[in-house]
Amino acid sequence: MANFKGHALPGSFFLIFGIWWSIKYPLRYACKKNKKVCSFGSKVGLQRLEIIEGATKAVFALIGMIAEQFVPDGPHLKLYNSEEKQWSHLMNWQHSTMYLFYGISGVVDIITHTTKAVPVAIDRMMLSIAVFVEGFLFYYHVHGRAMLDVHVHLLLLVAVFGGALCIFLEVFHRGNIILELFRTSLCILQGSWFWQIGFVLYPPGGGPEWDQMDHSNMLFITMCYCWHYAFSLLIVAVNYGIVTWVVQTKMKNGESLEMELLKSREREEDSEDEI
Amino acid sequence: MANFKGHALPGSFFLIFGIWWSIKYPLRYACKKNKKVCSFGSKVGLQRLEIIEGATKAVFALIGMIAEQFVPDGPHLKLYNSEEKQWSHLMNWQHSTMYLFYGISGVVDIITHTTKAVPVAIDRMMLSIAVFVEGFLFYYHVHGRAMLDVHVHLLLLVAVFGGALCIFLEVFHRGNIILELFRTSLCILQGSWFWQIGFVLYPPGGGPEWDQMDHSNMLFITMCYCWHYAFSLLIVAVNYGIVTWVVQTKMKNGESLEMELLKSREREEDSEDEI
Amino acid sequence: MANFKGHALPGSFFLIFGIWWSIKYPLRYACKKNKKVCSFGSKVGLQRLEIIEGATKAVFALIGMIAEQFVPDGPHLKLYNSEEKQWSHLMNWQHSTMYLFYGISGVVDIITHTTKAVPVAIDRMMLSIAVFVEGFLFYYHVHGRAMLDVHVHLLLLVAVFGGALCIFLEVFHRGNIILELFRTSLCILQGSWFWQIGFVLYPPGGGPEWDQMDHSNMLFITMCYCWHYAFSLLIVAVNYGIVTWVVQTKMKNGESLEMELLKSREREEDSEDEI
Amino acid sequence: MANFKGHALPGSFFLIFGIWWSIKYPLRYACKKNKKVCSFGSKVGLQRLEIIEGATKAVFALIGMIAEQFVPDGPHLKLYNSEEKQWSHLMNWQHSTMYLFYGISGVVDIITHTTKAVPVAIDRMMLSIAVFVEGFLFYYHVHGRAMLDVHVHLLLLVAVFGGALCIFLEVFHRGNIILELFRTSLCILQGSWFWQIGFVLYPPGGGPEWDQMDHSNMLFITMCYCWHYAFSLLIVAVNYGIVTWVVQTKMKNGESLEMELLKSREREEDSEDEI
Repeated sequence: MANFKGHALPGSFFLIFGIWWSIKYPLRYACKKNKKVCSFGSKVGLQRLEIIEGATKAVFALIGMIAEQFVPDGPHLKLYNSEEKQWSHLMNWQHSTMYLFYGISGVVDIITHTTKAVPVAIDRMMLSIAVFVEGFLFYYHVHGRAMLDVHVHLLLLVAVFGGALCIFLEVFHRGNIILELFRTSLCILQGSWFWQIGFVLYPPGGGPEWDQMDHSNMLFITMCYCWHYAFSLLIVAVNYGIVTWVVQTKMKNGESLEMELLKSREREEDSEDEI
Repeated sequence: MANFKGHALPGSFFLIFGIWWSIKYPLRYACKKNKKVCSFGSKVGLQRLEIIEGATKAVFALIGMIAEQFVPDGPHLKLYNSEEKQWSHLMNWQHSTMYLFYGISGVVDIITHTTKAVPVAIDRMMLSIAVFVEGFLFYYHVHGRAMLDVHVHLLLLVAVFGGALCIFLEVFHRGNIILELFRTSLCILQGSWFWQIGFVLYPPGGGPEWDQMDHSNMLFITMCYCWHYAFSLLIVAVNYGIVTWVVQTKMKNGESLEMELLKSREREEDSEDEI
Repeated sequence: MANFKGHALPGSFFLIFGIWWSIKYPLRYACKKNKKVCSFGSKVGLQRLEIIEGATKAVFALIGMIAEQFVPDGPHLKLYNSEEKQWSHLMNWQHSTMYLFYGISGVVDIITHTTKAVPVAIDRMMLSIAVFVEGFLFYYHVHGRAMLDVHVHLLLLVAVFGGALCIFLEVFHRGNIILELFRTSLCILQGSWFWQIGFVLYPPGGGPEWDQMDHSNMLFITMCYCWHYAFSLLIVAVNYGIVTWVVQTKMKNGESLEMELLKSREREEDSEDEI
Repeated sequence: MANFKGHALPGSFFLIFGIWWSIKYPLRYACKKNKKVCSFGSKVGLQRLEIIEGATKAVFALIGMIAEQFVPDGPHLKLYNSEEKQWSHLMNWQHSTMYLFYGISGVVDIITHTTKAVPVAIDRMMLSIAVFVEGFLFYYHVHGRAMLDVHVHLLLLVAVFGGALCIFLEVFHRGNIILELFRTSLCILQGSWFWQIGFVLYPPGGGPEWDQMDHSNMLFITMCYCWHYAFSLLIVAVNYGIVTWVVQTKMKNGESLEMELLKSREREEDSEDEI
């Protein structure tokens, strides 16, 4: 969907996952150091969490695929227009393919954490492949469009391929908090940048259009991308700080973190509702 | 051989190896975890298997080289046409060179697993080099052809260089099941994509030709490549599931896996016959 | 600030840090081997040092940002010129963004070494990101300028991306003296190259201008870059030699290194004053 | 020196080192496994060998630099021709710079193995830098020449950057026989390719010139490069086989390998004389 909503949808998905990760990983890290107080750190609890995460990913991917296929001007599962002798709605099909691989990654997550027959690192490998495929399709996707349009999408590729590489490294360094936070920050960057692309290419509310060929617009957008990343780092840092502070406070009070975890989940659902 | 058969031949080689690996590596992984029941896991058995695999690789490479050299319009080992003062049949010679390196890799496999004087990781290093050389030659191979022709070959390079990198990593992480399955999936992708190239560039049965300069064809082909990979992942996953299920059933029955292994080999030969 | 001072300022920052590192890392390495004599090697002392270093980095970044914003022809925090309907002073804003990320890195350094809640490797990760962002912005920064101007900036990218990669590796190999010395040499290279860029593009004292389109100038500048690196390696080697010699002499005399450390700090401040 | 000798000289240097390494590393590997019989494996002996190797490297680099500077049409240490207001003999200066970094690497080798104050991995790091600088200068070196000329030099870069990467990995995996053999094969490839470049661009004995713009020449040369590598792999394999066989025979006879080592050195010097 080459319109505002078509960028806001994936943007929201990435933002939700990024913000969730920015709570989950610091929480796990803090719990690992203070084993007594956290019931969160239990193996069964973590596994259940991973399964829920995988299922959410798969559902998001399904929503994305259905949206791309069955919007009014979508392909409705029709790939080849035999009357006009040409492919129909290739853009929507490409987006569907991107969602498909995230869906596979979600399913693999569920399988990995429900059975013991599969090596756990497979979930990271598959996520890395999904992210790489997204970048791979984007790379050819924007061929032949206006300069600014191409540029904003290519900038996205830095986050995408950076993320794919980071997740691939996690196959070998599983549970490395540095890589997990790095991935989180790139995920939030991707999410917020999708929204930015929507605002730049399809100004909502009939705002003024951006001059697609203006060189200074390109320079500004590149810099803007860095600001998004600084902002993304800030979110990760703030959430890290809050989570660590809460865990340490709990540790002193000797209370269970169970409740806190529930709250954080609710908060997550709230942010989901907002978007 | 720039025709349908010239792409179907290597495609079949890669498919056979890919499907074989998608049985072998899950089998070894399942056996490692259930050591009692598997006679497959024995060191001598595995070594013999590696030698057979190496010999098969070398034979396939030899068949490929002979086919490229002695087809009716081939070079018949003649490199320079001194009458016309120019190189003759450079394409066939380039293909022969690609096969040559796979042949070397096969020979190195055999040597590695028959003598103890050679470090074992050499087999992966040599395979990585062979795959890299294939990609290296392909990269310059397609210089100056039609757009779609170039594009379908360049897409192949993603699988080829990805494979070379993955195998190079195996030099340091030998026996890592994640890397082995990743390599397997890329190998199947290469095999099926060779068939796809054949169908696109030389439609068999006098089908309609593809418009080589149509931009939407390029977009479709890129997406199609991703579908091939999704399909390849499916094959690996299904075979992994079957193998794991069989091993676990056997484990319960306490029977030897010897018979199963024989069957899997037969199945492989069947699929070889089909192609 | 596209003038001589605008290049001399960051150049001096990098030189100061590079030369400081070329003393610090050999000193720590020598002390680790001769634990008895060095009070420098104490954990608390090292931590305090890291905090001072982080604070210095943050202050340098702040100076850079203020200089870029409030020079007479600077943007004075104004981003959009609504009269002329275009972005104003984008160059200065880009430079400010580069400094911003180094500033974040400095702040993260301080946080990392004052609290135990944050994994230590975060400081390297953030520095790696800061260096990468510098390179990323430079890459698009020079779009559309004269050939020599582009070339001298692109050469810088080799040191920048090399540095980013090296620091990223330090996340996994923290305290590896080889990587630390390599980073040091690249940092000095960057510093001296910024000065060189200033001299080439804005010859001070009304010297003769360089012909921006002359091919032989490009060849010379490329070679000159290598000489700068050879020079940078020499500085690192000489400082390494002096530090090691001093530590070994002290070891024999059994004196504390405390004094020496103080001196090295003073020496550093001197070189700061000079620039 | 843009002539046949200017390519034969570095080619010979690389060949000598490559062939020497193809004896040294298998010898060390075989000796490590059969510790009793080899006096070669002694620490002091190995260290002395490394020092000799470093000194040889430095001397070769010095010969190269002097040759580039003081050939009849060389720059004779003059960099700027102030009469014609342009740089003089930039090519020779670039070659000198390449040799310079190999010289530094040789000196670093000597320092590393004579004192204990320097971490040993520095020798690999410096060699990696030297190889990278060679590739870096070559990349810009060939700008604006004829197609075939550019192509044969760019092909060289595959071996050069591959070698730089391989040696960089050795910093972390020192003594890994796979990487050492890989480096050896790339070194021989570089050596033989320098000779090939000489024959292609400056056919000795007044042979027919190659058509620099013929596309099929480019295709042939690319393939030829692969054959050189196959040949290089063969040399490494044969030398590996001979060395291993000799060591195993000696082991049975219980004789010292001292004599064998002397012979191999003499053989090396012979091949040096020939060239």
